[in-house]
Amino acid sequence: MAALVGSAALRAGRGLRGLRGRTARSAAGLRSLGGPRRGYAPGRAESTPTFGFLLDVDGVLVRGHKVIPAALDAFARLLNPQGQLRVPVVFVTNAGNILQHSKAQELSALLRFKVDPDQVILSHSPMKLFSQFHNKRMLVSGQGPLVEIARALGFQDVVTVDELRKAFPVLDMVDLARRPKTTPLPRNDFPAIEGVLLLGEPVRWETSLQLIMDVLLSNGSPGADQARVPYPHLPVLASNMDLLWMAEAKMPRFGHGTFLLCLETIYRKVTGKELRYEGLMGKPSILTYQYAEDLIRQQAERRGWAAPIRNLYAVGDNPMSDVYGANLFHQHLQMAKHGRAQEPEARGLRKQQPSATQSCTSILVCTGVYSPQDVGSAELHAGAEGVEPPFHGHRDFGFSLGLMEASHVVKDISEAVQLVFHREGWAG
Amino acid sequence: MAALVGSAALRAGRGLRGLRGRTARSAAGLRSLGGPRRGYAPGRAESTPTFGFLLDVDGVLVRGHKVIPAALDAFARLLNPQGQLRVPVVFVTNAGNILQHSKAQELSALLRFKVDPDQVILSHSPMKLFSQFHNKRMLVSGQGPLVEIARALGFQDVVTVDELRKAFPVLDMVDLARRPKTTPLPRNDFPAIEGVLLLGEPVRWETSLQLIMDVLLSNGSPGADQARVPYPHLPVLASNMDLLWMAEAKMPRFGHGTFLLCLETIYRKVTGKELRYEGLMGKPSILTYQYAEDLIRQQAERRGWAAPIRNLYAVGDNPMSDVYGANLFHQHLQMAKHGRAQEPEARGLRKQQPSATQSCTSILVCTGVYSPQDVGSAELHAGAEGVEPPFHGHRDFGFSLGLMEASHVVKDISEAVQLVFHREGWAG
Repeated sequence: MAALVGSAALRAGRGLRGLRGRTARSAAGLRSLGGPRRGYAPGRAESTPTFGFLLDVDGVLVRGHKVIPAALDAFARLLNPQGQLRVPVVFVTNAGNILQHSKAQELSALLRFKVDPDQVILSHSPMKLFSQFHNKRMLVSGQGPLVEIARALGFQDVVTVDELRKAFPVLDMVDLARRPKTTPLPRNDFPAIEGVLLLGEPVRWETSLQLIMDVLLSNGSPGADQARVPYPHLPVLASNMDLLWMAEAKMPRFGHGTFLLCLETIYRKVTGKELRYEGLMGKPSILTYQYAEDLIRQQAERRGWAAPIRNLYAVGDNPMSDVYGANLFHQHLQMAKHGRAQEPEARGLRKQQPSATQSCTSILVCTGVYSPQDVGSAELHAGAEGVEPPFHGHRDFGFSLGLMEASHVVKDISEAVQLVFHREGWAG
Repeated sequence: MAALVGSAALRAGRGLRGLRGRTARSAAGLRSLGGPRRGYAPGRAESTPTFGFLLDVDGVLVRGHKVIPAALDAFARLLNPQGQLRVPVVFVTNAGNILQHSKAQELSALLRFKVDPDQVILSHSPMKLFSQFHNKRMLVSGQGPLVEIARALGFQDVVTVDELRKAFPVLDMVDLARRPKTTPLPRNDFPAIEGVLLLGEPVRWETSLQLIMDVLLSNGSPGADQARVPYPHLPVLASNMDLLWMAEAKMPRFGHGTFLLCLETIYRKVTGKELRYEGLMGKPSILTYQYAEDLIRQQAERRGWAAPIRNLYAVGDNPMSDVYGANLFHQHLQMAKHGRAQEPEARGLRKQQPSATQSCTSILVCTGVYSPQDVGSAELHAGAEGVEPPFHGHRDFGFSLGLMEASHVVKDISEAVQLVFHREGWAG
């Protein structure tokens, strides 16, 4: 549904008008695109990569359960004859509700080489950095192996929404068939909850929305009465703010961002105040890119690559998350260089190694959400009604047209890798 | 939770400052409150009532599954020695997800006299008036005996959200365990949906929200692609806009209004446009009061009471729905008298008999959501922070402080009936 996938694609599209020449050039004449060659002799280049890749998964490497053929071409270039990566690569996906090692296994099978769990960044992976909450009692919302996911992220004391529902049966009243038949005695032996983890879209949204609200409004003790709305409320860490995503259906499906939108709206309507996130992870959050940068650096160190990684290339199919995020991080790097970078939402971020990264370049592929055809119809759509298209990004990421513009638009991941190798003087 | 139930109670409370004398007076000296006596001789009064009651159920007559004792006292006064009502009475509840005759049975058992289904107004009852949609193919959202409820309201061709989900298995993707394992063939043999009925809060909000959005965005054919967002969208009829309600838990629970809030917000975020209701029923909608007025009139006719019913008394426990609704209807009656009444959302309303009603008086009881103690704490709460308390009413019912002020605040339904009898000269 062009008009809807549009929102993001559309803005990218409108910003991309001036890029079409570049797109055409990149498709037609890649050989002419080489950047500064930095004096690598072709034979020596491999030993000291100074760049790395942040690869999105859905719509770039896979579609549904099938690998996109261009991904196999790309990895033929990225791997050396021993089957090792020639440059650092991390997989940055907004998927959640899955364990990191399961995602690594899934990718290994699809891409036909061993992907290490340390190369996989799920939307909630940066929660590992919020160590100040790891010993707190956290309510966790999502589905799949929730408790295992939370434990793997470092959280030692988690309570699921379902456990909370069983401890306080009078809270969850929407489903007539699940209402308690008798009034249970109130309990005072349930240790107070100290924070909320929103890992991914849950099942039965009414139950999670109600119980999360109860925890926030009761300061962690949903059995107790509370004279006032506690504010600021308990810390909330959330991951994956994608409003919509593309699956088999012709129209986009609800993502975790739609759940967050409901929660934010209910919180504001009931309390008159804004729900605040202690951390909001997943693309396009800078935190995710900082985390990816860290993993890239560690990967290079493990491989014994002494030269610092200076240039990152983020390849994705979604202008709103992949392009916006990469550009936002690039902007952050530029400001940091001039000492003007604000610490983003990463208040709980552990002290990181100083960054050697100088740039993060966004590359948009046409094998997923974004399609060049959308641009025309989206422009038509916007033009016909003469109104701004709706903004599908998250509330906390104000719309900035410039950040939607990809540095490069290419056909697929194979072309993206060729483009980068040319720029970095690795052609041939 | 005073600070939250507050929103409504709180505003009522602040508006009620000047009413406290009245409250005290009504409790202490009911006998002095008699209105114009209209010349009834005590023996003849019963044969010609010119007033009727609109009684809320939860928090006025029952609490949970138990009758409130004052309700039995009240009905001892309302019934004649033959067990017949002396004045027209309708029960006006925002409950849904139940059949009218089931509610009548429930009330009969609790109140110990035969309540007729024609005396019961559920939140969706006025949908009977929207006959122009009764032969349309309607998607129906809610729970309980959904199809039976819709049929009883007059809708001949209904599709439940669950039936739609089964017809188009690729639409409902949130629950990982319910996603289709294979990609089913797209189907073109499903007749297009022509409207949406929101009867009450459903179970699995993510499924209903997604499928309702799919129907609205695809103009009723969720299997098809759609180049543009159709707007105005398909007609939506909704009932019960209560954001919160009080059950056993100390804090209020989500009502259907919370579900509607999510739907409205998602629609606006995705399309950039406002979701519009063809009809929005249940208190405080004028439509509900017009419907109640009609039933009161019919009831009086059936009993052979020739005098027109001029005064309605609406007794409820919720300032936001019961008081606001009664006052809004009273205002509407006053404007109609001067030929200035706008037709509200009742575009589809069948031609009604001309109204003889001159007033609708709001009476607030203290046996439910509203409690006089709230007023103090709520004032404290609002005063301490110096901000307006949040507005818990529906988007389409702008906040008006005056409409939150009950004409009378009494202890319970028994006192309410005494008050009315005094005003109408039926005392003694």
